[in-house]
Amino acid sequence: MVERIPQDPGYESKVRESFARQQHMATLGAAIEYLAPGAVDISLPFADRFCQQNGFMHAGAIASAADSANGYAAYTLSPPGTDVLAVEFKINLLAPAQGPGFLACGRVLRPGRTLTVCQAEVFTTGPGERALVAVMLSTLIVRPIPHLKS
Amino acid sequence: MVERIPQDPGYESKVRESFARQQHMATLGAAIEYLAPGAVDISLPFADRFCQQNGFMHAGAIASAADSANGYAAYTLSPPGTDVLAVEFKINLLAPAQGPGFLACGRVLRPGRTLTVCQAEVFTTGPGERALVAVMLSTLIVRPIPHLKS
Amino acid sequence: MVERIPQDPGYESKVRESFARQQHMATLGAAIEYLAPGAVDISLPFADRFCQQNGFMHAGAIASAADSANGYAAYTLSPPGTDVLAVEFKINLLAPAQGPGFLACGRVLRPGRTLTVCQAEVFTTGPGERALVAVMLSTLIVRPIPHLKS
Amino acid sequence: MVERIPQDPGYESKVRESFARQQHMATLGAAIEYLAPGAVDISLPFADRFCQQNGFMHAGAIASAADSANGYAAYTLSPPGTDVLAVEFKINLLAPAQGPGFLACGRVLRPGRTLTVCQAEVFTTGPGERALVAVMLSTLIVRPIPHLKS
Repeated sequence: MVERIPQDPGYESKVRESFARQQHMATLGAAIEYLAPGAVDISLPFADRFCQQNGFMHAGAIASAADSANGYAAYTLSPPGTDVLAVEFKINLLAPAQGPGFLACGRVLRPGRTLTVCQAEVFTTGPGERALVAVMLSTLIVRPIPHLKS
Repeated sequence: MVERIPQDPGYESKVRESFARQQHMATLGAAIEYLAPGAVDISLPFADRFCQQNGFMHAGAIASAADSANGYAAYTLSPPGTDVLAVEFKINLLAPAQGPGFLACGRVLRPGRTLTVCQAEVFTTGPGERALVAVMLSTLIVRPIPHLKS
Repeated sequence: MVERIPQDPGYESKVRESFARQQHMATLGAAIEYLAPGAVDISLPFADRFCQQNGFMHAGAIASAADSANGYAAYTLSPPGTDVLAVEFKINLLAPAQGPGFLACGRVLRPGRTLTVCQAEVFTTGPGERALVAVMLSTLIVRPIPHLKS
Repeated sequence: MVERIPQDPGYESKVRESFARQQHMATLGAAIEYLAPGAVDISLPFADRFCQQNGFMHAGAIASAADSANGYAAYTLSPPGTDVLAVEFKINLLAPAQGPGFLACGRVLRPGRTLTVCQAEVFTTGPGERALVAVMLSTLIVRPIPHLKS
């Protein structure tokens, strides 16, 4: 129904280059685990230094991975010469962020020339049943790159 | 109109103790700058290691400070023996997160026995006019502390 | 993974009775088209009197159907003697709300004793390919019915 | 800090003309009570036919007034030849929507060339203390009018 055909044949390399420049992802130990047109999964290991007062990963750390997953999912579909920025997002925290690690799966719900809407689900990883930790709904803007430099 | 009378006379010490246990805040270099019934301001210094691909602070880092500001604003009004957890939040990113630092100002909009709603504004700090970088609307749940341990 | 077993064997009749008491649904001409544990679909016919300035259905009319679909999806799973109220919702409007009618499909993402999180998708109906018009993410509170009367 | 200077000298008449074309507002009995650059207040009378199962106004009816208040607040600041559409909104329902009527007060938080962010508060009206019933945070897109016709 909705087209998931990348307009930029170099979509994979541009996503990986941009991700490598996101120092916040390196700081969190996050990595791209899956990349396809309209879809990016990012892993986030559990780490005490990003926890809140009860020893769960802070909502802001979980949101960081989900926001980047949605942003790069949108970026796979954006035309050459454009960048993608989050305009806003909403996240529901569904279960305590415990366990060895997390996977944030970002998907494009509706690609657009100016605005793209994405949804991410964040699951626990490791042995045992995975749990749905969070869901995020994001609006992103697609902008010509010179615009960003101004 | 809305009461901002703390139910816990030890509200200040409980907030500071809980904040001290949020390792994520220490990792970000965040600090409580203001604390009153229904209001908490948290400072967040700019740091390259929490930036996104354009050299602005990552939305997840800004969201971390705003989420904690709202959470602790709610916590100042929660009864003794309770803790506060974010259920969900929505953040609008209004301007690039540049500059020497940021201040996330969390305020209680409506305190409740079970649910509290807060709003945070995040401003740039430093010389020159401050800019409104982000606004967050959060729903938080007030729960008996034993519940959290189960 | 997540249980979708109704705790109230009379879930279907309680949903239909409550829906019949929602005068707003009758005013909009909305009807329940599908009802199962954790899932409710509500149809909404197009009508000029609920339109905005460009002749599309007003976002508030679309949101009304999606909010009720999520609320009743949550209500199918709530225990006997409880009611369900929306705490908050966020809706993304993905395409102009044109066409002969709409179907709002509400689904429970995570049922809970106190809070339930639901997601609704709103599609166009009628001849031709259906279009995704809106997506809504909602938080709902499950409360004992006497509480509502106080 | 943020400029609230209308770019269109005819901002008031264009808002009132557009509002008059929103049949949904007439159906709800809503009216513009206040209009200034970056600010629009809309009244909404209580009516049984827009209520939910407990006799409170349906969240979708409250959201309709708040969405239009935010949309028209944004429209007061948009340049000549443009229209404004809601991209998304999030609403927190803070108290039961009871009473003789409501006032939805929409305000521009950040005007922009492409995107404008607004916030609305909805209060009860009538005798006695007003209550804050809901708060809405909205993202709106400013588009050339021919674009809307395509």
